[in-house]
Amino acid sequence: MTRHDGRAVNELRPVQIETNYLMHPEGSVLIQVGNTKVICNATIEDKVPGFLRGQGKGWITAEYSMLPRATADRTPRESTRGKVNGRTMEIQRLIGRALRAIVNLEALGEKTIWIDCDVIQADGGTRTASITGAFVALTLALAKKHGEKPFAKFPIIDYLAATSIGIVKDFGPVLDLCYVEDVAAAVDMNLVMTGAGRFVEIQGTGEEATFSREELNSLLCLGEKGINELISIQKEVLGDTANLIGSAKGESK
Amino acid sequence: MTRHDGRAVNELRPVQIETNYLMHPEGSVLIQVGNTKVICNATIEDKVPGFLRGQGKGWITAEYSMLPRATADRTPRESTRGKVNGRTMEIQRLIGRALRAIVNLEALGEKTIWIDCDVIQADGGTRTASITGAFVALTLALAKKHGEKPFAKFPIIDYLAATSIGIVKDFGPVLDLCYVEDVAAAVDMNLVMTGAGRFVEIQGTGEEATFSREELNSLLCLGEKGINELISIQKEVLGDTANLIGSAKGESK
Amino acid sequence: MTRHDGRAVNELRPVQIETNYLMHPEGSVLIQVGNTKVICNATIEDKVPGFLRGQGKGWITAEYSMLPRATADRTPRESTRGKVNGRTMEIQRLIGRALRAIVNLEALGEKTIWIDCDVIQADGGTRTASITGAFVALTLALAKKHGEKPFAKFPIIDYLAATSIGIVKDFGPVLDLCYVEDVAAAVDMNLVMTGAGRFVEIQGTGEEATFSREELNSLLCLGEKGINELISIQKEVLGDTANLIGSAKGESK
Amino acid sequence: MTRHDGRAVNELRPVQIETNYLMHPEGSVLIQVGNTKVICNATIEDKVPGFLRGQGKGWITAEYSMLPRATADRTPRESTRGKVNGRTMEIQRLIGRALRAIVNLEALGEKTIWIDCDVIQADGGTRTASITGAFVALTLALAKKHGEKPFAKFPIIDYLAATSIGIVKDFGPVLDLCYVEDVAAAVDMNLVMTGAGRFVEIQGTGEEATFSREELNSLLCLGEKGINELISIQKEVLGDTANLIGSAKGESK
Amino acid sequence: MTRHDGRAVNELRPVQIETNYLMHPEGSVLIQVGNTKVICNATIEDKVPGFLRGQGKGWITAEYSMLPRATADRTPRESTRGKVNGRTMEIQRLIGRALRAIVNLEALGEKTIWIDCDVIQADGGTRTASITGAFVALTLALAKKHGEKPFAKFPIIDYLAATSIGIVKDFGPVLDLCYVEDVAAAVDMNLVMTGAGRFVEIQGTGEEATFSREELNSLLCLGEKGINELISIQKEVLGDTANLIGSAKGESK
Amino acid sequence: MTRHDGRAVNELRPVQIETNYLMHPEGSVLIQVGNTKVICNATIEDKVPGFLRGQGKGWITAEYSMLPRATADRTPRESTRGKVNGRTMEIQRLIGRALRAIVNLEALGEKTIWIDCDVIQADGGTRTASITGAFVALTLALAKKHGEKPFAKFPIIDYLAATSIGIVKDFGPVLDLCYVEDVAAAVDMNLVMTGAGRFVEIQGTGEEATFSREELNSLLCLGEKGINELISIQKEVLGDTANLIGSAKGESK
Repeated sequence: MTRHDGRAVNELRPVQIETNYLMHPEGSVLIQVGNTKVICNATIEDKVPGFLRGQGKGWITAEYSMLPRATADRTPRESTRGKVNGRTMEIQRLIGRALRAIVNLEALGEKTIWIDCDVIQADGGTRTASITGAFVALTLALAKKHGEKPFAKFPIIDYLAATSIGIVKDFGPVLDLCYVEDVAAAVDMNLVMTGAGRFVEIQGTGEEATFSREELNSLLCLGEKGINELISIQKEVLGDTANLIGSAKGESK
Repeated sequence: MTRHDGRAVNELRPVQIETNYLMHPEGSVLIQVGNTKVICNATIEDKVPGFLRGQGKGWITAEYSMLPRATADRTPRESTRGKVNGRTMEIQRLIGRALRAIVNLEALGEKTIWIDCDVIQADGGTRTASITGAFVALTLALAKKHGEKPFAKFPIIDYLAATSIGIVKDFGPVLDLCYVEDVAAAVDMNLVMTGAGRFVEIQGTGEEATFSREELNSLLCLGEKGINELISIQKEVLGDTANLIGSAKGESK
Repeated sequence: MTRHDGRAVNELRPVQIETNYLMHPEGSVLIQVGNTKVICNATIEDKVPGFLRGQGKGWITAEYSMLPRATADRTPRESTRGKVNGRTMEIQRLIGRALRAIVNLEALGEKTIWIDCDVIQADGGTRTASITGAFVALTLALAKKHGEKPFAKFPIIDYLAATSIGIVKDFGPVLDLCYVEDVAAAVDMNLVMTGAGRFVEIQGTGEEATFSREELNSLLCLGEKGINELISIQKEVLGDTANLIGSAKGESK
Repeated sequence: MTRHDGRAVNELRPVQIETNYLMHPEGSVLIQVGNTKVICNATIEDKVPGFLRGQGKGWITAEYSMLPRATADRTPRESTRGKVNGRTMEIQRLIGRALRAIVNLEALGEKTIWIDCDVIQADGGTRTASITGAFVALTLALAKKHGEKPFAKFPIIDYLAATSIGIVKDFGPVLDLCYVEDVAAAVDMNLVMTGAGRFVEIQGTGEEATFSREELNSLLCLGEKGINELISIQKEVLGDTANLIGSAKGESK
Repeated sequence: MTRHDGRAVNELRPVQIETNYLMHPEGSVLIQVGNTKVICNATIEDKVPGFLRGQGKGWITAEYSMLPRATADRTPRESTRGKVNGRTMEIQRLIGRALRAIVNLEALGEKTIWIDCDVIQADGGTRTASITGAFVALTLALAKKHGEKPFAKFPIIDYLAATSIGIVKDFGPVLDLCYVEDVAAAVDMNLVMTGAGRFVEIQGTGEEATFSREELNSLLCLGEKGINELISIQKEVLGDTANLIGSAKGESK
Repeated sequence: MTRHDGRAVNELRPVQIETNYLMHPEGSVLIQVGNTKVICNATIEDKVPGFLRGQGKGWITAEYSMLPRATADRTPRESTRGKVNGRTMEIQRLIGRALRAIVNLEALGEKTIWIDCDVIQADGGTRTASITGAFVALTLALAKKHGEKPFAKFPIIDYLAATSIGIVKDFGPVLDLCYVEDVAAAVDMNLVMTGAGRFVEIQGTGEEATFSREELNSLLCLGEKGINELISIQKEVLGDTANLIGSAKGESK
């Protein structure tokens, strides 16, 4: 049985990552996962938040937003409403936490990396596309910095990508849900994994529903497959820069 | 190797649930999990939010807060700061979502249940204690309503409880982390499950760390054991009211 | 004529003060005045607000809040509404001002005492119960500090307690109004007095009503009687710590 | 011993009330009490707040503000800071409550009176000058309405004025404190009374100080004297309109 | 003397307008003016704001925002700061007002058009690029609506475009300032004009400087030239849709 | 054809400027332009905002507000609504920018001048009356400072005044619109000019309308005439202080 867009249940949507998308940021990427489009920018700031000052460690923090018409109906701006809603906060905390898992914060030194993920078009999976794209923007920013003044050790330890999986009526477990599938899913899971195949984050949620241990296992297998493919694409677009990742001395091997 | 408080790695802290704790709420509970103490109140309101109006369905929403001195250092009040922070939003969204998974919202009818979880003393695991306690407060509130004017079908389908598990240095996977263990954990997981042993929510996070599939499985086994024990305690404190849960006609069997 | 709960017009409700109620705060009390229950915590911070810096004086500030279901109907949280309302501000300003009247701020030194009064159940008189309980929490916190590193002079000069009085239809002046009496009162007064019988604060208000000089005098006599009884209870629960209050050298006599 | 501005301890500052000060409001007054100058405007709105709808009763609400340079140093605007502070809230609640005590809200009918008190120059006693001026603005507004469409019964029952009294070092109890005296006062009291000599509001506060029953009585006597004089001035500036106040049929006698 | 990017003083930067840029909005455009890039989306909502209800007229309102890294240094998000700043408000009011000048609001009927201008890359002239792009997005949205259910009269009366002009040291009056010129300009002017060559908005500002009547005239001439060129580009990208503009019956001629 | 208040199309309303209006501000003015009344105060603060620190330059910033009943209907306070609206922001940015154009900020030194314009009665032209009045308040404040400790060079370079002009149906271009004319105007323009006849700010806006080059020229001529008259009035009320303006050494000539 094929999905409404012709994909197999274990098939990702077409993914494109355009590097150096904008002129000002240190690292800038436009990632497209099917119809979902996110601009991911990385900014390097030479100071750390108060709670880290003087510890020789860096920090990574993320902000996430959607254009009002990223969605089918117009969503009022959070700036106009005067506050950031719970969903946005949840997503930006997730993005920051996920990236910190593959960065050696001591090697980074007393710097803050600001990750900005701005969804210009949404069709499901915006938070996972944000993580996958943000990883590339972050790597580009640090590689640029490394080119100017090399780190003793390049701070990025491993690859990082994310995808969604879910249990959809009539299909069972499926990989990389687009919006119509997401709305119909009884179980919704976001998975963040490293190049070494280790978990960084698992967030599985029954939406007025529950799931069994067997279903969980099927979802994790599908997710792992998708993430491997996403990491291959990241490697490709990074080209030589990819050699810096996980390198002992932060030099290309 | 025993933990700092003498527990085995697969042992819960002592749990107490005092029902009918406050006089005004329809359902009210004080739950203590070790030194963590949370007041959980359930309020029934005879209307639903705008997006559900006219659909014959109910809704469950939760709010979570901590007293400023629930913590070792004083935490400024969110009311004084003028906004609810991201961690609070994440937790209250989790509590509401978890409870909705075991409630038949059609059977509930056009009502909103407000769940208020107020942590008066915190020592790790406040969000999972909130869910475990809120389940009891919710059941009491609906049982009271049922006593006044019986539901055609009692809206609570199954039990629901939550616990935390994590990977702590020198101990590996452990159940029900108190605060000092939580701070030291490389992996932190919150698990919400039903009486039937199905998952409602899995949130596993590497804190500047990652974890393998095997570690995940160990964590899930520990969590399942803890949740079974918590559900036994819920049954006990609910007494006869427990018979209503999952009953076909919402009558005691 | 007896009141709806059987009390005489000059009779307080039963009062209980549980000391060391929570584990984290320097001073912690649960005060119950009839069905009104307030958690009062005192926190000592080793700095003062900007306007006092460098003057060798300390400061006392208070915050007050009610759980949403402290009341018969659920009151929306001030954190969710994004602002503290006028009634709350009025009360927290009153609590801070009252406590400052019986503390020698020079003897305290450059410290801020934060008083948190959180009403978990409300049945009238929450602001006066807060003051009466906060006095005990404050004394416990300073006594603990004094035990670690004695003050040259113990900063608490005298006892402090508060009660409400009012003029209620069919009863005239009555002491310690519970909620149903408070709603029915034409005149509502809050009185804060010291152990030496001096006034710290008188707030008398006609609610779409007025009152004469004679009525004022009756109210003050009732209030004085109630406050004397409250101070006896404070002395009792403080035990030996009570000896520190007003002591010349801050040592037990 | 004379005060720094040559007044006796029981002497008010010069008071001027200019009626019909601005062109748009239904009632508009500029009141000057010494150097304190407040614009008091009354607006009649043909609806009531939600909690009163359908009860045939009216409401009076007040807002209070100071120009940034009403004070010796510039005070930042509350609009710029994004919130109204506690002192402002306390004052506007007091003004509204005081006026409601001398208005028959049933006779008013389903109308809201908005009282705006804007201090353009401050030299102590701004809240009491606001009440004294607001009473005149309110009377003018209702008299104008009465002229267009007579009330069955004119809603204002009695006069209302307010003053401050305090205990100042070297002087003891004094009437109508200007700013330098207010800062130096150990006890600060605001008194609101009616034309019949009854109390509407007593707010007496020790500022890091306390006071005795005898001192209270002296303060009340001074305050009563001042309020009688203020009410004479109100009568004079109201002219014939004064006849409406307390009139059985709301017609001039 | 040529400008730093080789342009003559009366030369626009290269302009590109990509229509149907995003999939969800009724009208969507990416406009590039040199390095300035703005996404302009138009949303049609079938209701009007309260002040227009029942008058048979429509409304156009605009919101403007910049991605944090649209600029050389990262600008904190307005949603995070909790309020929209003055510059943003000024710009979005300008965009809305400008568009309303060339729309027949009666012909539009009781609809609101939301215009969202999101700057993804900024290099001067973001507000004028927003207006020029928004005009095209608006036209596309109304043309789409017209295709589904024709307007009695197509609501767009005339073309509308905007540019900036300024007086820059060493160059005098110049057209279409990029960021480095804008910063150096003594006089900064934004001009909005119609296809018929009439003014909609002139905003000329001395930045710690002033300007004469002759200088004003030079600036207006330059601006008029630029706007004519921008309108030619609009016509070209609109293709056949352009025929609807100003058409008597709203049908293509 | 005469205007509704009997003025010719090129005639200003009666203007009065009362200097030293309030006692606390360094410079204080009540300006009346017809029925429009604005209190303009200038405050000198001995520091500059962060972006100017250490540059030896001063700054001028303005805030603008209206009393709730400055208008025919009561306008809710911005402090109560918790935010400053777009119109207010636009106006206060305009006032600050205009004044900075005629002040030598280097000669001022590291000081901030706060200009507060509070409209107590509004009948059109409040922003231009604010600028005209604020210029006088600013001059008075700097002259006072100069009297205490002379500036090497008096910082005010030239006079500054502002007026409105517009195109009103049946009248064409008219000078100094009152409220009823402003509402009816198709084109609305605010003009700020110096004593030397140079432009500081031109803001011309079609309100759902447009205007030609010829109309623009007529408006500018009318505006110039009005501003010349306003500057004559400023000179007169400033008396000898006027000599300081534009003086080489900041001494009276």
